[in-house]
Amino acid sequence: MAEKAFQDYYPENFSYCFGCGRLNQQGYQIKSYWVGEESVCHFTPREYHIAVPGFVYGGLIASLIDCHGTGTAAAAAYRAEGRPMDSLPALRFVTASLHIDYLKPTPLGIDLVLRGKVEEVKGRKVVVRIKLYAGDEVCARGEIIAVQIPDNMLV
Amino acid sequence: MAEKAFQDYYPENFSYCFGCGRLNQQGYQIKSYWVGEESVCHFTPREYHIAVPGFVYGGLIASLIDCHGTGTAAAAAYRAEGRPMDSLPALRFVTASLHIDYLKPTPLGIDLVLRGKVEEVKGRKVVVRIKLYAGDEVCARGEIIAVQIPDNMLV
Repeated sequence: MAEKAFQDYYPENFSYCFGCGRLNQQGYQIKSYWVGEESVCHFTPREYHIAVPGFVYGGLIASLIDCHGTGTAAAAAYRAEGRPMDSLPALRFVTASLHIDYLKPTPLGIDLVLRGKVEEVKGRKVVVRIKLYAGDEVCARGEIIAVQIPDNMLV
Repeated sequence: MAEKAFQDYYPENFSYCFGCGRLNQQGYQIKSYWVGEESVCHFTPREYHIAVPGFVYGGLIASLIDCHGTGTAAAAAYRAEGRPMDSLPALRFVTASLHIDYLKPTPLGIDLVLRGKVEEVKGRKVVVRIKLYAGDEVCARGEIIAVQIPDNMLV
């Protein structure tokens, strides 16, 4: 895709997140985009991201839902304010709570697709629901409550 | 510690988990032990496991709670059956659901301690609550519902 991902708009000092920072060379560097009202992220796990042979590690699934969720939260907050993601002040979100239901084993070796829906944007809080697909199957379902980053995380 | 960790008892084909498999060279290889009625795990994140500079990545925290939770579930199930962890049949658990509350930013650069309490052992299901400490502070709190591994994950 030629368009910039949500994460490509993050200010440099917020771009070292292990899950979504474009400058974290060891990390996952996930990329999220709007597709209509949904936020979408594609990710193909590495061969060592397993729980048992053949199936994706649940901690990775939690990580993907987490970072796709905070990215979606930021994008939704800009949308709610009617301004582009490169305008200031920058809006960045962290996770207040994360809930994941692992519905079925997630097969390794295929592209996973995360589809997010914004449930609520209220004050400093955004609620996002995410489904993780392997092909046509929903393998996990997550809900994240994201909040604007507190001042004590700005070092 | 000289005693074996819960994860050291996992059969070989269950020992490649990215979070807790002793044979996954790229993974976290966490180790969990009973300390009285609590299960305890120590882990020091790497310098690149960050959300923003100075603070630990929430996806890693979710991963640690997840794998310490499934390990605790297995250990609790053996205890409930009154048999040692190296007896057969092997009991192995996967995550049905995971809930994390991120209470405060988790500082990077110090040893993190996870303390688990078994809430319920019932049939194939075990519920574990876990607190993650940085020093004396509880930075995150998790609840995991673990279930004995379904046959469709045994490849």
